[in-house]
Formats: sequence, C-alpha cells, structure tokens
Amino acid sequence: MITQKASAILERIREENPLIHCITNYITVNDCANILLSAGASPAMCDALDEAYDFARISAALYINFGTYIKEQEAAAAAAALGAKSAGRPIVVDPVGCAAIPRRTGILDRLHELAGVSLVKGNMGEIMALAGKKAGVKGVDSDGAIPGIEEAVLETARKYGCVVAATGKIDIISDGNRMARISNGVPMLTKITGAGCMTGALCAAAAAVARDRDEMFAAAVAAVSVMGIAGEMAGEKADLPGSFRTALIDAVYGITGKTLLERGKIECEKI
Amino acid sequence: MITQKASAILERIREENPLIHCITNYITVNDCANILLSAGASPAMCDALDEAYDFARISAALYINFGTYIKEQEAAAAAAALGAKSAGRPIVVDPVGCAAIPRRTGILDRLHELAGVSLVKGNMGEIMALAGKKAGVKGVDSDGAIPGIEEAVLETARKYGCVVAATGKIDIISDGNRMARISNGVPMLTKITGAGCMTGALCAAAAAVARDRDEMFAAAVAAVSVMGIAGEMAGEKADLPGSFRTALIDAVYGITGKTLLERGKIECEKI
Amino acid sequence: MITQKASAILERIREENPLIHCITNYITVNDCANILLSAGASPAMCDALDEAYDFARISAALYINFGTYIKEQEAAAAAAALGAKSAGRPIVVDPVGCAAIPRRTGILDRLHELAGVSLVKGNMGEIMALAGKKAGVKGVDSDGAIPGIEEAVLETARKYGCVVAATGKIDIISDGNRMARISNGVPMLTKITGAGCMTGALCAAAAAVARDRDEMFAAAVAAVSVMGIAGEMAGEKADLPGSFRTALIDAVYGITGKTLLERGKIECEKI
Repeated sequence: MITQKASAILERIREENPLIHCITNYITVNDCANILLSAGASPAMCDALDEAYDFARISAALYINFGTYIKEQEAAAAAAALGAKSAGRPIVVDPVGCAAIPRRTGILDRLHELAGVSLVKGNMGEIMALAGKKAGVKGVDSDGAIPGIEEAVLETARKYGCVVAATGKIDIISDGNRMARISNGVPMLTKITGAGCMTGALCAAAAAVARDRDEMFAAAVAAVSVMGIAGEMAGEKADLPGSFRTALIDAVYGITGKTLLERGKIECEKI
Repeated sequence: MITQKASAILERIREENPLIHCITNYITVNDCANILLSAGASPAMCDALDEAYDFARISAALYINFGTYIKEQEAAAAAAALGAKSAGRPIVVDPVGCAAIPRRTGILDRLHELAGVSLVKGNMGEIMALAGKKAGVKGVDSDGAIPGIEEAVLETARKYGCVVAATGKIDIISDGNRMARISNGVPMLTKITGAGCMTGALCAAAAAVARDRDEMFAAAVAAVSVMGIAGEMAGEKADLPGSFRTALIDAVYGITGKTLLERGKIECEKI
Repeated sequence: MITQKASAILERIREENPLIHCITNYITVNDCANILLSAGASPAMCDALDEAYDFARISAALYINFGTYIKEQEAAAAAAALGAKSAGRPIVVDPVGCAAIPRRTGILDRLHELAGVSLVKGNMGEIMALAGKKAGVKGVDSDGAIPGIEEAVLETARKYGCVVAATGKIDIISDGNRMARISNGVPMLTKITGAGCMTGALCAAAAAVARDRDEMFAAAVAAVSVMGIAGEMAGEKADLPGSFRTALIDAVYGITGKTLLERGKIECEKI
C-alpha cells in the first residue's frame, strides 16, 4: 500500500518536473543538482539573500541543507522559508552535522518556528541528536543501526509535527502515526560523499508533488527507497567509489515507479 | 568561412593556454574548471573581494556567471570587471537565472556600464528576458526553440554592443551585424547540470584568444559549437547522465580545430 | 626506511578513520571529500565562523586550503586554527595561488603565528614564492621542475619549523633535516582540476595519524606518493581527463601500505 503510493509519487516527479529551490552545501551541491535532474525534477540553487524569498515563491519545494552554513546562507534560508510558507510550498530540511554541532539543532528549531517544516531527513546520529539523545557519533557520518533510533524518529516527528526520515542500514521513517522501515541500500553509499544530501534533495522533489500531509509520508518513503535501490543498481555496475558515484546518478535516471514496486524493500505499520 | 575562423580560435586556445579568471557558481564550478583544462586553457577561480581586481589584470579573460551570486561574489565581480577593463581583457557574462530573477538583468547592466561586456551567453529564456520579452520559462532552464529568439539575440547584441549567444536546440549567435545558427548538440546536455556554465567558460577561453571585435563573434561560435559537438561525441559513448558528464569532459579533450571543421553544423548570414 | 614509515602511516589512516576538518575551496571540495573517504579518513567541511573553533577541537587534523578564500572562510580558518592548537591537532596548509597573489603568503604567516603550522603543501611555484624566490609562474598552476626548488623547500621548512612538500614532476619534501624526492605520477594529473588539493587533503589525513614531529615527515611522503601512485594506476585505466578523474578516486580506494612499498619511487637523504 505504502509502496504503491511511493511508486505513484515517483512517477509524478517526472510528469510534473517540479522546480526545487535548494540552499545546500558546496561539497555535494553538484551531485544534488544532477540527482534531481536524473529523477525528473528541475533544480535551482539560489542563496543570495535578496533573491531567496521571491525564488522560493516560484518554486515547488524548498530544500535546506546545513552542510556548510555560512552566514549569508543562513539568512537566505530564513527568507526562503518565509517565501515558501507564503506560497504554501513544503520545506524539507537536512540538518547535516547537528549531532556534532549543537547550534544546528537551534537553527532547525528557528526555521520550524518561522515557517513550519514538512520533512526532516537526517542520518541516525542527527535524528538522535534532534530527539535529545546521545548516539556516540563522530563528525557528520553515522550509518550503523543505533539503539533507540525508532523512538527518536517518532518523537522528532511528533515534536515538529512533520515527517522524519533517519537513514542508515535500515532507514526509519515516521509521520508520528506510522513507521516505515526500508532495507534497500549497499555499504558503498557510505564511501562516497553526498549520498545523504542527494537523498535529502530527492525528498524535496517528492515532497513537491505530494498533494497533502498524508502523501508527505509516502514522499519520504519514495525518496529514501529510490536512493537505496539506486545504490544497489550502482553496486551491480561498480565496486569502487569513483565509478560507483557515476553509476548512482545513471541508476536514478532509469528508476521508475515500476522499479520501486519490484525492488523496494519497504515495511510499514501503524503505531 | 566562420567555421574556419572558429576552428582557428579553437587551435589558438591550446597554443596560448590562456589564464581564465572565473567568478562562477559553486554548483558547476568543478565542471567549468575541468572543461577549461580539457580545452587547453588554464582556469583560476578568484572571488575574494580584495584579490579580484589584481587577478583579473594578470588573466587573459574574465568569466562572470550569476548562478549563485552571494554578496562577496557580486562585489568581487565588479572589482574584477574594472581590473579586466584596465588591462584590456574581454569580459564574458553568463546571466544565469535572469529570466526568473529580474534583479540579475540589472546586475548585468551595471557590469556593462562599469567595464563593458564583450560577450553574453545565456539560454533562450535568459536572452529573451534581457531583450525585455516574455518567454514563459520555469526556473533557470530553457532549451526549446522560442518564437522571437533571433530578434531577441540581435536586439541584445545591439543594446550592449557586444556578441550575444543564446543556446538551445539551435543555438543563435549575433554581433549585431551577423547571425550564426548552430545545430550541433543532443538532448542529454539538458539532463546534466552545468552544460550551460561550461559553454560560458569555453566562451571566455575563446574570447581570451580573439584578436579583435571581429574575432569575438568567431570565438562565441567556436565555444558554442565545441560544446554541441562534445555532446554528440559523449552521446555516442554514454546514454545515461552520470556517464555522459564524464564522457563530455573526455570529448572536449580530444576536439581540435579539425574536428570542428568536420562536425560543426554552422550557418551564418549577414543581417 | 622512509618508505616503510610512509606505508605504516597509510595503513593507520584506515585503522583510525580520522575526522579531517577541511576549510577549502569550492572548486575541488567534492574531490577532496571523496579522496579522503577513499583513503579511509572521514572528511567534514565546516567553515561557518561560529562553528569552526569547536569543530577543529573534535577533529583529528585541520586542513586549510586558500583556493577561493572568501572573508568568512578566512575568519573561520583563524578560529579553526586556534581550536586545533588548543586541542593539539596538526594544521596542514595548502597556500593555493600564493605565487600569483602575494597577499596569500601573508595569510599563511598569520596562521602560523597564531597557531603553528605542521605541514605546508604547495606546487613548485607556490613554494618558491613562500621562499621569496621568483619562479615565473602563470596563475595557480606550476608543475615543471624549477631551478632552486630544493633550496626553497628547505628554506621554507626551516622558516616555519615544519614539513614542506612541493609537488611537481619530482616532488620535493623536507622537514629541515631530511629531503625526500618522489618520482611517481603522470602528466594527466595536471589536466584535471584538484590533484593538488586532493594531495593536500591526504596530507591532512596522514598528519592526523602521525604520532610526533618525526612521523610528520613520513606523513607528507605517504600522502604525496599515494597521489602519484594513484595517478599511475588511473593512467593505466583511462587516458582522457573525465575518466581519469573517476579512476583516480577508484585507485586511492585500493591503495594499501603494501602498494606503497611496491610502487613508491621514494629517495631520501639527510642534509
């Protein structure tokens, strides 16, 4: 049921070609743009302070990623969030590094107060940090299973009243009422930079075509499972990280709703 | 005739290895640097405010791209433009996003007043916007043929007194007296980020070796047709976007003046 | 002897998976992150002014690269350097462009006064400039052998009391008492952007696991020879720059201490 909904969301990205306004880090921004194009969305990075508000209003969704958050980006993100809110567009946040840099949890809180966040995507250490739990995470990476992660996802979803996705060996997604577990993916996704950021960007593309809050949950499931499936497909072509990264973008270009139905390893339960 | 001139410009880039000062967006900056190296030029990105003026003076051309135009870049671009003017170097501008963000047309106007622009390269929606025409463009992308585009290119060339190139399915280039139409290229160029920016960077490399205003027109034709031919060559190797991007940079490395003579689909007329 | 020590350093990177705090340019930052992951380190780019001090303290080494040094990065780098100093972490600097932009030598001097630099990695033109010698270098690139380079490396190492590496056809490394010459590498490394920056990032990963000042010299030898060997291995797979860049990251992923023992062309002498 959730898989069918996620599949439909994925098809809709290619039909509607949504414009995704990204305010993201300069490390993986090129990968984010290319993965959005491969998925059928139209990326635009606009983080000049005096352009962000208006640009968010003409976009279908806003993606904010804290990876390298210089002052002008931080101010532009606030302006863009207000623009997205005024136009009724979803805001997707990837609070990169909030486990290692506590200030970033505060930035998410302020964005949420300002404009309301629709979807938060982080790795397990980041979502643990948002839920106020310790996870023993080094730097910005965390991908193993962490005890207490399901509770952390649920609590964070209820705290912000939004969908929350924690990526790891098994990805956990909740909207506060349901919990999905996705077991697609391969370890090589942790040996390149950008897999998390690209997942966040795909979340924004999926959120852009979600019709209501119910579909926002399916949107997160669609985006997260697409990256896992793409990782598996890339792993069949390439076993070294440089080649794998190229194969990953190639793979997303070929993934359709049908691929998701065939390869998605998605479980979902009411809670 | 124009094809021979463009071919000679291309050869000259490899002979002279011009230093190209780029102030460009962080999305595709790596692609711009790599495409310039592949074409035989020497890229250097220098957008610190207190370095830009002096660096422009020791460079052979200045490339300014509005893709992600934070405040320090905007100020540095003005300083660099003055440096380029004082040293007699050509200034090439890619007004990315000016169709969706009207403020950016004003930025181009100010740069032109300040220092004089030699070559403007945009997609069709951007050039329509510069000419004050509506084109119904979403975000930053526009690649179909647009009614009125030839007039828009001509008017913009006359307005700024420079060469203007509008890229799309058929690329249109004019210096106000002549109009070239280039029909090289493949649709996959629109499925990766950066094809437009890389074309702009190549325009700067070609402009750097143009001897006079007459050759500036041939320089634009050379740069735009190289990207189209490279797209065709990459398309023969790769039909998925990640691989295509790699093949595109590979292709430019192998393109010589002779390739352009053999594969360039260039028409030119006096107007 | 030095080769064995360098080999051990390389193995230790994969064992300890050090967190490397990078403040680097936006051109090649993605390549730096991917090469660090391929070598077994954990990269994190953190250049927001109010985060850099604390983040340097939890990292194993700090890498500062002057490639595109906007004001906030310059301030953040000073804060990060103080953080690294307070936690006893090594600071590795790549003074990109200091041959063409004299101000950048002053920036290195200030960082060194502030916090003490452990390792400086530049191309030959840059190290000549640090030693106050003319090298007739254009822009940011310089890779041929330059008369006087060995003296320049030695003088710079003594001036800063640190290890200095100058990369080129034959790489020269000194700690003021010893001099190593490394003759691995291929010309294609100069046809892509980022080979120098990636070498600098690897220097930081190696410095992070060096136990003392004596090992810092072996760390520089390890990092510089890994990049040369990776270039040779990539050159066996790919003869065009786009493919070569992918193969380079693939190659580093497979290089072990044993590879370095087998393929490293390293000479070392006391001076």
